[in-house]
Amino acid sequence: MSGSTWVPNNDPSSDFSLANIPFGIISTQSDPSPHVAVAISSYVLDLKVLVSEVDLTPIFTSSSHADVFAQPTLNAFAQLGRATHREVRRGLQDLLAADTPYPHLLRDNAHLLERALLPQRSVKMHLPMAIGDYTDFYAGYHHAFAVGAMFRGPENALQPNYSHLPVGYHGRASSIVVSGTPVGRPVGQMVLDPSVLPKQPTTGPSRRLDIELELGCFLATPNDMGQPISIAEAEEHIFGYVLLNDWSARDIQTWEYVPLGPFNGKNFASTISPWVVLADALEPFRTAGIENQTPLQDYLKQSRPDNVFDIQLSVDLTTPEGDTTTIGRTSSKHLMWSFPQMIAHHTLGGCPMRTGDLLGSGTISGPTAGERGSLLEMSEGGKKDVLLYGMDARTFLKDGDSVTLRGFCGVLGARVGFGECRGRIYSAMPKVSES
Amino acid sequence: MSGSTWVPNNDPSSDFSLANIPFGIISTQSDPSPHVAVAISSYVLDLKVLVSEVDLTPIFTSSSHADVFAQPTLNAFAQLGRATHREVRRGLQDLLAADTPYPHLLRDNAHLLERALLPQRSVKMHLPMAIGDYTDFYAGYHHAFAVGAMFRGPENALQPNYSHLPVGYHGRASSIVVSGTPVGRPVGQMVLDPSVLPKQPTTGPSRRLDIELELGCFLATPNDMGQPISIAEAEEHIFGYVLLNDWSARDIQTWEYVPLGPFNGKNFASTISPWVVLADALEPFRTAGIENQTPLQDYLKQSRPDNVFDIQLSVDLTTPEGDTTTIGRTSSKHLMWSFPQMIAHHTLGGCPMRTGDLLGSGTISGPTAGERGSLLEMSEGGKKDVLLYGMDARTFLKDGDSVTLRGFCGVLGARVGFGECRGRIYSAMPKVSES
Repeated sequence: MSGSTWVPNNDPSSDFSLANIPFGIISTQSDPSPHVAVAISSYVLDLKVLVSEVDLTPIFTSSSHADVFAQPTLNAFAQLGRATHREVRRGLQDLLAADTPYPHLLRDNAHLLERALLPQRSVKMHLPMAIGDYTDFYAGYHHAFAVGAMFRGPENALQPNYSHLPVGYHGRASSIVVSGTPVGRPVGQMVLDPSVLPKQPTTGPSRRLDIELELGCFLATPNDMGQPISIAEAEEHIFGYVLLNDWSARDIQTWEYVPLGPFNGKNFASTISPWVVLADALEPFRTAGIENQTPLQDYLKQSRPDNVFDIQLSVDLTTPEGDTTTIGRTSSKHLMWSFPQMIAHHTLGGCPMRTGDLLGSGTISGPTAGERGSLLEMSEGGKKDVLLYGMDARTFLKDGDSVTLRGFCGVLGARVGFGECRGRIYSAMPKVSES
Repeated sequence: MSGSTWVPNNDPSSDFSLANIPFGIISTQSDPSPHVAVAISSYVLDLKVLVSEVDLTPIFTSSSHADVFAQPTLNAFAQLGRATHREVRRGLQDLLAADTPYPHLLRDNAHLLERALLPQRSVKMHLPMAIGDYTDFYAGYHHAFAVGAMFRGPENALQPNYSHLPVGYHGRASSIVVSGTPVGRPVGQMVLDPSVLPKQPTTGPSRRLDIELELGCFLATPNDMGQPISIAEAEEHIFGYVLLNDWSARDIQTWEYVPLGPFNGKNFASTISPWVVLADALEPFRTAGIENQTPLQDYLKQSRPDNVFDIQLSVDLTTPEGDTTTIGRTSSKHLMWSFPQMIAHHTLGGCPMRTGDLLGSGTISGPTAGERGSLLEMSEGGKKDVLLYGMDARTFLKDGDSVTLRGFCGVLGARVGFGECRGRIYSAMPKVSES
C-alpha cells in the first residue's frame, strides 16, 4: 500500500505519505488532553475522535483500540505488539487510500472529517512515549573513529572492544523532550586551559555546545528480568523509530567523563521527533550496515545482512538572524551495529526492557566531509570554521541558533519520513545560589 | 520523640524504633493491592487501613492522606514535600508512643489493631518507589582510591576531576529490585586472558560477580528542566534513604567500560532495602564526611560541615550451606561528597529530577582492611581469599550465595535502621538462541 491518499493538499515531498502512517501524541483546541493521532500529508488524523465515532473493529480485525487511543502516551498501543501495529497501520491505510474500500467511514463523512482530520499546524505535539530508560549506543562507526582519532590518534581511534560489542551507556530519561522544546545552554564545570597543570576547573555556560545526529528506537514489548531477548526475537520487540538529537556540551563532557562516562555533558536535554515511524514502515528500506570483519560472538550474529535502514538524514542550522544552512547530509546506513544487535547485547545479562524504553544509535556520520553528524567532527574539534549562509560561521552553537534534523526514505509521493527534530538554544541563566 | 512504643514484642535491637518510622509498600493477605505502611518494631502499621478507619486529619494537621496511602508506590506521598513528611511522621509517633495522647484511636481500638498492626513476617514487601531515573555516584573516597590504585597505581589512583566534582553516571532504573528478589548471575562478554593480544572476548556467566555497599537517596520534589537545585535548597528535595547493593560483574565491566562507562556489568540488577528511612529520621546522626582539601566551585560549597550521616553498615555473606560471615563493617560517613552536593551538581546544567529518582552514593569503604564495601577490594582484585565460616572462602560470589546489607544509627531501643537489603545469586541459565 504505497498509493496516493484522498487527503487534500497532498504534497509529494511530505514525509507522511500513505506509505508511512506514523503515530504521535497530540492535543487540540477542542480536546486539550494529549491523545493518539497519525500523520497523513499535512494533516493529522485524530484516532481518539475517529474510533469514538465509527466502529473500526472489523478493519483493525480485533478491537477498536478506543482505550489505547485515548491515552496520553503511545505506550499502551506499543505494548500490544507488532502484529497489532501492523493491522492498525494497514487498516488506516485502507481508510486513507484514494481507492479506499470504506469511503463512507471517513472520506465521505463530512461531519467526522471536520473533527478528526486536522491541519498539523493546528495541533500541539507532545512527547510520544513515557520513557522508562534511555540507552545511547555508539554504533556510528565513522563518528566513533573520527572522535577517537581526535583524542588518541588514528592508530588507537577505536577501543579494542568496539568491533566485538555494541558499546553503549545509560542516558538520562527525564530530560528527553519533543521537537520544538527550547534547550537551555547548560552551565557546568570545565577546564578552560588543559595545558595548565594541575587542571583547574571553572564553572560557567558551556562554550562547546554541540549536536549529535542519531536514530532512536522505541521498544514495544518487554522481557522478563533475567531473560535475554535473542537476536532472532529482537525485531519483534521494536515499536518504531524517531530522530534523536543528543545535545552535548563537549567541554563539560571532556572534564567529567573519566572514568564513568558522560554525565552533565549530556543530561541537560535530548530532543526527539514527535512522530514514531512504525518498524513496518521502514521495512522496504533495509540495507547492509558497515561491514564488521571481527568474528562475532554467537549472540550477536544476525542471519540477514540488511540489518540497518537507508534513511536520508540532514542537519540544518538556523542562525538567530534566520539564515538556514544544511551543514550535514548522511544516511542511517553508516552503523556498524543494528538495533537487534543492541537489544540482544543490552539484555544478554538479563537486563529488563520495558515498553517505551528508548535506544539511541549513537551519532551517525558518513565517510566524507559533508556527512558529519556533530559539530565536533565538522569543526575538527573546534579548530575549523563551519561556514554558514549570511557570511556567518560556527565551531559550536551560539545562543539563538536552531538545529533541525530531518530524515526520510522513499521517492516523492511515497516518502516515509520523520518530520522535524528541532531545538533552539536559549542563553544559560543559572539559578544557582550559594549556601 | 525517641521514647518507647506500646507496640508489643518490642525488641531493643530493632531497626524500627519509635525514632524511625520508615515508609514502605506492602501487600497483605486481605489486601493484595500494594499500598503504604510504616514499620514499627517487628510489626507494620498498614496506613491504608488506618486512615480508612479513623480520621487522622487533626493529627496530620492538614489531611488524612487517604489517597496517597492507597497508592502502589510512595511517590504520591513523597511529592507532598518534607514539611508533610515531617508532620505525618510526628503524628504516627504520637499514635505509637507508650504515652500516646490518642490511646483511643489505635492502641485501645482492638478491632482496628487487629487489622492495621500486622507482623512484618505476614506481609509482602514491594519496591517502594516508581523510579524514573537512577544515578550512581562515586563518592566513597576509600573505595575510589583503592580501586583506582589497583588499576593505575597509588600515584594515579584518583582522576584529576575526583576532588572537584562528585563523579557519577546514569544507571539502569528497570533492574532495581526490592530486597529478597533473587539475582541471576549475568552472562556477558569478557576477556579471560588479557595478556593475549589482540584481546579475544568470550561469552559466558560472569566469574567475578561482586557487590557494592551503597547508600541510596530518593528524591521527593522535582525541579523544572533548566532550573538547577542550589545546594542550599537540595536538602528540602530529599525524601529519604535506603541501602543499595549495586551488584557488579567485574569481568564484564572491565571489557566494556571504555570509553562510555559501566553498562552490562551493572544493569542486570541493583537491590534496595524495602523501607525508606525519612530524611528527618537521620538528622540526629549527622557528621562530617571525608575532608576535601580542594577548593570547591561555589555551587558545591556547603555551609554545614556535618553533611553526611554516621550509619553503621555491615555486609553478611551466607553460603549455600547456610554459614553466615560478616565480611565488612564500615560507616556511611566515609563519603567525600554529600547528597546535597550530588543534587546540586546533577542539576547544575538544568537536568530535571523527578519524584522517585534514586541517587546512589557509590561504594562505601572505610580506611582499614575490615571496612571494605566490595569483594573486589576485599580480595585485592581476586588475588586473595576472603575467609568465611565453615572453612570456606571467596574471591567473588558463588551461585547460591546470599549477601545481606544492614545499616543503623542510634542506641539500643532507639535505633533508626534500614532492615535487610538481601539478594541470593542463582545460576545463569541464558535463553540465548542464534538467528
